[in-house]
Amino acid sequence: MNAMLEPTAVAHDLRSCDSALARAFDFLGKRWNGVILGTLSTGASGFADLKRAVVGISDSMLSERLTELVGAGIVERSVGAGPPIAVSYRLTASGLALLPALDELSAWASRNLAGTQSPAH
Amino acid sequence: MNAMLEPTAVAHDLRSCDSALARAFDFLGKRWNGVILGTLSTGASGFADLKRAVVGISDSMLSERLTELVGAGIVERSVGAGPPIAVSYRLTASGLALLPALDELSAWASRNLAGTQSPAH
Repeated sequence: MNAMLEPTAVAHDLRSCDSALARAFDFLGKRWNGVILGTLSTGASGFADLKRAVVGISDSMLSERLTELVGAGIVERSVGAGPPIAVSYRLTASGLALLPALDELSAWASRNLAGTQSPAH
Repeated sequence: MNAMLEPTAVAHDLRSCDSALARAFDFLGKRWNGVILGTLSTGASGFADLKRAVVGISDSMLSERLTELVGAGIVERSVGAGPPIAVSYRLTASGLALLPALDELSAWASRNLAGTQSPAH
């Protein structure tokens, strides 16, 4: 193996099978999560707003994804004073901190994966 | 929906279900691909070197992953003058361009997903 590049944090992290990066891909790669985060990146949303933005998702799947994102500390759920009770979702500081990394990955993907097909799933 | 943030490229991309970012997660999230890219980020490697670095992978699975990465234009395979014939793998310009984005995502994951459990798969 020739040393072509300086070792980076990613080289170290990627070489561990159970890396933090692998965990990030585990949930970021799940269907809908990207669309949900993209919608919340523009501001807090109610459940119905998210349902409209994430075309094709069912109520139960949207609930499940939001529960996962809240559990991972990326999204927070807040309940406004009623009546009527208004539940809204927004990105936490951790969720906001994720956006620049996703932006960079998105820019790379647009430049480099334009010709590849998305698997049918 | 309140406008909390300036719209970014990622917000636009993430709101499309068939986005380039979703395609990136499709293959980056596959088991072993991160470890393979991490190993190649330090320099060109032969098949046997990669096999040693990616602990637990079978010959057939390593071949399959390398074929996918070559097909996506992220890795290139070169055959040296023999004998013996020496096949080596290295990152393409596209693969090298991916490293800063993975580095940033990896740093975020280390800071923000430390307490979460990796799914058993």
